[in-house]
Amino acid sequence: MAVYTDVADEDLAHFLADYDVGALLSYRGIAEGVENSNFLVHTESGPYILTLYEKRVNASDLPFFLGLMNHLAAAGIICPVAISDRHGNTLRELAGRPVALISFLEGVWVRKPQPVHCGQVGAALARFHLAAEGYSLTRPNALAQPDWRPLFQSCREGADVVLAGLEAEIDRELAALQRAWPEALPSGVIHADLFPDNVFFLKAELSGIIDFYFACNEILAYDVAICLNAWCFEPDNSFNITKARALLRGYMEVRPMDKAELTALPVLARGSALRFLLTRLFDWINTPEGALVKPHNPLEYVRKLRFHQKISNASEYGIDV
Amino acid sequence: MAVYTDVADEDLAHFLADYDVGALLSYRGIAEGVENSNFLVHTESGPYILTLYEKRVNASDLPFFLGLMNHLAAAGIICPVAISDRHGNTLRELAGRPVALISFLEGVWVRKPQPVHCGQVGAALARFHLAAEGYSLTRPNALAQPDWRPLFQSCREGADVVLAGLEAEIDRELAALQRAWPEALPSGVIHADLFPDNVFFLKAELSGIIDFYFACNEILAYDVAICLNAWCFEPDNSFNITKARALLRGYMEVRPMDKAELTALPVLARGSALRFLLTRLFDWINTPEGALVKPHNPLEYVRKLRFHQKISNASEYGIDV
Repeated sequence: MAVYTDVADEDLAHFLADYDVGALLSYRGIAEGVENSNFLVHTESGPYILTLYEKRVNASDLPFFLGLMNHLAAAGIICPVAISDRHGNTLRELAGRPVALISFLEGVWVRKPQPVHCGQVGAALARFHLAAEGYSLTRPNALAQPDWRPLFQSCREGADVVLAGLEAEIDRELAALQRAWPEALPSGVIHADLFPDNVFFLKAELSGIIDFYFACNEILAYDVAICLNAWCFEPDNSFNITKARALLRGYMEVRPMDKAELTALPVLARGSALRFLLTRLFDWINTPEGALVKPHNPLEYVRKLRFHQKISNASEYGIDV
Repeated sequence: MAVYTDVADEDLAHFLADYDVGALLSYRGIAEGVENSNFLVHTESGPYILTLYEKRVNASDLPFFLGLMNHLAAAGIICPVAISDRHGNTLRELAGRPVALISFLEGVWVRKPQPVHCGQVGAALARFHLAAEGYSLTRPNALAQPDWRPLFQSCREGADVVLAGLEAEIDRELAALQRAWPEALPSGVIHADLFPDNVFFLKAELSGIIDFYFACNEILAYDVAICLNAWCFEPDNSFNITKARALLRGYMEVRPMDKAELTALPVLARGSALRFLLTRLFDWINTPEGALVKPHNPLEYVRKLRFHQKISNASEYGIDV
C-alpha cells in the first residue's frame, strides 16, 4: 500500500478539465494496491479513483484491463468503469505515467467472510465469466502453469528458509501438476485475483468487484479454484466446507460446471495454491527489510496446497458431483 | 504517509453506529500524515476523516487538539471539526487506539504557492489567532526555544555529516537565540505548522486549514515567522519578498502586529528556521534507510536560517515598519 508518484494540484486540475466531471474539489493518495499509485478524487460530480500505473504494470496490458471493466459493466456486472475524456480516451498520461480516471464504487471488503458472503462471491464470479464472453481483447495468463517452474527457479533458494524440505516438495508438486494439468476445459476471461479485498459488500449484499489487473484468458474453473483458496479457509488454515459449499453452489446456480471441470477442481486448486505460494515466496525473498509493503507469508499456501493434495473428488468440497 | 493500523469492517460499522452519520458506505486508508493512521470514510451522510492516533501522539494532548478545532469552527474558522457521538464524546477508542471522526474538508493544497495564496494564508493565520482567544484549554509548546538545545544534544552528531561546520554553527545560533529571544510579546494559541500542505484552496480561494496537531500556546508572531519560512522561499531557497509582503499584509489587515512584534520578527524567523532545522536533522539521522517516510532535507532550513541572520529590520521582509 503506497503512493509512489505525487500529482501536482495544477496538473490534476488541468487533466480533469478534459473530462466531463466538474471541477476538482479534493484528492488524497490512498494506501491501496502494491503496483500503482491511487488517489481518491472528489469532483463536483462525485468521487473517482485516479490510478497512475507504475512500472510493474505492463503498459501494453492497460487497454485490455480498462476495456474489460467497461465491457463487464455494460453487461451488468457492478464494477468500476474507466471514464472517457472528451475525446473518447480512457487511457491518458499524467506525471509521466499512464493514468486512468475510474468510477468510485461504494462498499467495504469483509475481513472475516461468512458463508453468506461466499455464496454471493461464487455467483458474482460466474456472472463475471458469462459477462466476459464476447470481449474482443485477450491477454495470456502471465502466471499460467508452464510459468511456475521458471518462477520457482528464480526463488528456489528461499524455499527451505521458509520451511525445511519445501524446495523438494515444490519440485515434486511442479512435476505432478505438469502431468495432471487439465486440457480442453472451458476457458475465457478470468479475474484471477478475486480475494476478499477485491469484493465489496454493503450490509452483507455484494456491491461490486474491483481490481482487474490480473485478469487474463485461462480455464474458467481455475478462477473458482482461486476463490476456494481465497475465501474458504479459516485464519488457522483449516478448510471450511460450509463456505466452500456456499461458494460452489453460488457459482453453479449461475454457471453450472460440467463433469470435466468438477473432476479437475482438486488439481486446479493445487495449481492455484502453488501459484500463490510461488509468488509469495518470490516476494518474500525479494522484499528488503523495512520495506513499504510487508510480504504475505508463503506458509499459508503450503498448508492449502497440502489440503488439496489429499482431495480425490470435488464432492469433498461440499457439493454433489 | 502511511496507514499503521487497519480497521476491520465490522468494527468500523459498529463504531459508526454510535454516531448520527448514517451507515458506512466505504473507507480507504489515506497516505497522509506521518504520525497517525487516517481513513477517508464515506457514509450515507457524506465523507469523513477517521484518525487513529498512533503512539507518537501524546494521548493527553488530544482533548486540546479536538477542542481547539471545534472552538475555531464555532468562531467562524473553516477547519475540520471533531464529530460528537450520541453521548457527546469526540474522542473514542478503536482498534486499541484513541480515535476521532472528523469532518471532511474539500480543497487541494497548492504545490507552488503564489503571492495570491500567501496573502490569504496571512489573513487566515490572523483570523486563527483572534478566533482562538478565549479557548479554555492550554498546551505548552513542546518545541519552544528552551527545548532546542536538548533536542540538538540528541542529534548533534549528524550535523557535520549534513554539512561541514554545521555543528558549530548551530551551537552559535542556539546561544545567540537564547540571548535575543523576545519576552512579553502577545501570545496565544498558534497553529505552529501552517505549511502549504495544511492549507486548502478551491479555485485560488482559501477553503480551509487543517492539521492542528502542533498547536500550542506561544508567541503569536512566531507563527507568522513559521509561515514566512514555509511560504515565502522559492525551491532554490531564494527569498521572495513579494510573497512575504503579501503574507504579512494579509496578516496585518486582520491583526496588526505592534512595534515590539515587528522588531522581534527577524529573531523569531531565525528561531523558526532553527526549530525546523533541528527536527529535520533529528529525523534525518533517526530514519532507517528504506523507511516508509522519507525525511526532509535539513539543508533547506540552514539556508533559511542564514538568510534571516542577515535581516536587521522587519522592513526587509517587505512591509512598512
